[in-house]
Parts: sequence; structure tokens; C-alpha cells
Amino acid sequence: MPKLRVQCFAVSLDGYGAGPSQSLENPLGVGGMKLHEWFVTTRTFRQMFGQEGGETGIDNDFAARGIANVGAWILGRNMFGPVRGPWPNDEWKGWWGANPPYHCDVFVLTHHPRDPLRMEGGTMFHFVTEGIETALNRAMEAAKGKDVRLGGGVATIQQYLRAGLVDELHLAVSPVLLGAGEALFQGVDLPSQGYRCVEHTPSPKATHVILARSER
Amino acid sequence: MPKLRVQCFAVSLDGYGAGPSQSLENPLGVGGMKLHEWFVTTRTFRQMFGQEGGETGIDNDFAARGIANVGAWILGRNMFGPVRGPWPNDEWKGWWGANPPYHCDVFVLTHHPRDPLRMEGGTMFHFVTEGIETALNRAMEAAKGKDVRLGGGVATIQQYLRAGLVDELHLAVSPVLLGAGEALFQGVDLPSQGYRCVEHTPSPKATHVILARSER
Repeated sequence: MPKLRVQCFAVSLDGYGAGPSQSLENPLGVGGMKLHEWFVTTRTFRQMFGQEGGETGIDNDFAARGIANVGAWILGRNMFGPVRGPWPNDEWKGWWGANPPYHCDVFVLTHHPRDPLRMEGGTMFHFVTEGIETALNRAMEAAKGKDVRLGGGVATIQQYLRAGLVDELHLAVSPVLLGAGEALFQGVDLPSQGYRCVEHTPSPKATHVILARSER
Repeated sequence: MPKLRVQCFAVSLDGYGAGPSQSLENPLGVGGMKLHEWFVTTRTFRQMFGQEGGETGIDNDFAARGIANVGAWILGRNMFGPVRGPWPNDEWKGWWGANPPYHCDVFVLTHHPRDPLRMEGGTMFHFVTEGIETALNRAMEAAKGKDVRLGGGVATIQQYLRAGLVDELHLAVSPVLLGAGEALFQGVDLPSQGYRCVEHTPSPKATHVILARSER
């Protein structure tokens, strides 16, 4: 049965999935890029952006698992961009340029309707105003039997967690302190929802853990 | 210059330094023992309790650093025991039996006066009612040039952190979820106080990090 998976989601030692004050200059909030140092050096990351080289090993293995068997994505609006409120026009097309690294259907949660946006390389952004369950149903349909990846950010993951809809989370705990930002675990009691740590693989750059529940 | 150090302090993936509902049966709160699996198997831990054997390696290295050059300890009252309010009598002598693993002066923070308590093996418990700075001054004096170890729990560490008095923290992030309990990082902004991660050494059982500040 296809899963809803969080993958390659980096958190700081103090539990933040993004820094404070997201902006055009700091898409991941102030200091947020430091969370992803384990990731941006991997071969998989570089391939996603059409580049050669990159490191192999534990970090790359998890990066590769993050895109394996993924048929569609769900993103919170803030992961799509810094625009807030109604869409003023179609100018903002995501953080990733003309050819985003998704290459499949991506469902963006928003309160403000917008027409779908076809990008190069097979990525199609759909804007879903009917809530997280509708987005999940549409993504599952689009994924055609593959899994759906829940990209983030923190608020979006927490919504899906509270609704009991996430099958698996891969977190990468990065050896940095952020001190403020979006706290992934705050107000979410994972063990009481049946999650436990089923895999623990540290690398020199991050500690990779898989959290999963038995039932769905 | 002698330091105030937090050592071997285990936190869960979701940031809890102890589970909920501390009691005589669960000194570390429900589920809290799982935090310390990396520690209780080490040679150093076994030696502290007069036992043979135990594992060597990364976890043991950090366990050994935790007691090296430590001349005195500070504990919050809940780390000393489950008794709350005024001390009804001298019956409670700590969690550790007649010969506690400290073998030096230990300063217990409490609002309720109590006479010092001499134990076997060189441990002497002092009960400090004059606040955290007095406890630190007395511990530094007793340590005679060695460092003072701040044992915990979370509330005590947070008090010393907020007062800017902690020089170094060694945390062991254990691959478990607690879901509730005492959240070490909540309401404490470490980077804004000058702390950063200066060492990151994962083992198969825990991710060891040292957080330190340059100034004091």
C-alpha cells in the first residue's frame, strides 16, 4: 500500500526544522541552511539539480531513499515560496527555477486558489484549497501506486501528524543549534500516536532516524 | 579556570531530558531509562558502581570524560529523590544506596533546609537553600580547582543556562521518542547565549555533541 512519507527532513539539535524569519534571502529561515549540509554535498542532491559529482555514503543513501518510489509531493505554501495572502499574479513559480527537482505532480496547500502551473522537466504544481486530506487523496491518485512525499515545512508536517496520516518520517538531526524557529516536536506526542524509532544510522554529518508506526 | 559542565546528559529525539511522572518506580520518568542505554552498558558506568566488564568505545569515552577532573557536583532536588516539600526526616538518602557514585561533595538545590549527609565512599550531600549561584560558589570551593559537574535535571540545567553559568554541555541524543516530559531546549535560546556545537561524535547508540561558549 502506498505510503505518505516525510524524507530528508533536517532538524537541529534543539528541534527546529527551520530557522526564524523566512524570506527571499533565507528560504529556510535565518540559519536554516546549516541544517542541510549533510544533504547538499551528496551525489543525489547534485543529480537532482543536473550536476555531476557529489559524495556517496550514508548521507547519500538516505538522500537517494528520499526520492525512490516517490510519485507525488505535498508542500506547505511556505515551502513553495515567501508570498503570503492571495496570489497577486502568476509571477512566483517556486524557489527552484524553471526546472524544479520534483519531476512529478506537486500539491501545494494554500487558502488561495490558483491555476495549476506546468514547469519544465515534468513538474506540475497544483494549488489545493480544500485541506490536507484532499491534497493527500489527489496526491495518492497522481502517484499511481507509488508513495507520496510530504516535503514540509514544520506546520504542514504537524498537521498531517495530528491527523494520523503520516506513515514514516526520515529525520536527519544536524549538529547545529538554531535557538528559535519552527519546533517540529512541539505539541506533537509521537509515541502516543504509535510512532517509534525503527532505524538509527549516524553519519559524521547527521544522525539519520526513521520514525514509523505499525498501524495505519 | 575550573568549569561548570553538564556531562552525559541524555535527551530523546524529541528533546526530552526525562520522561513524565517521576516516581520511586521511575526515577527518570516514564520511559526515561531508555535514554541511558548508551551509558549503562559502558565500562565506566559499571566501574562507578563497582562492577566489572562493560563496553569500551565512543560511548565509554564520553562516559569517562564525564567524571574526569570533576571535583564536585550540583543536583536539582528531583535528581536526589522523589520527596517534595519539607524533608519529613532523614530517611531518604538519594537513589544510589549507601555508597553513591559521586565520591565527592554534592550540592543539592532545595527550598527546604536539611543537615549535610555523609555517605560511604567519600560522597557528602549538602542541601543548599540559597539559590543556584550560592550552590555554584560552594561547589567550586569544594572542587579545589577541578571542574563542577551539573547533574541535572532539566529544570536545574535550564536555570543555570538562563543565568549564563554553564561552560560546556555534553548531550547524548538517544534514538528514542518520549513524546512528553521535560523539554531541555524549550524556552532556552542557546545560540543567542553564545553556545554552538563544537564537537559531534555519533555512536551506534547515541549522538554525542558538545555545546560550548567562548566567553564566560
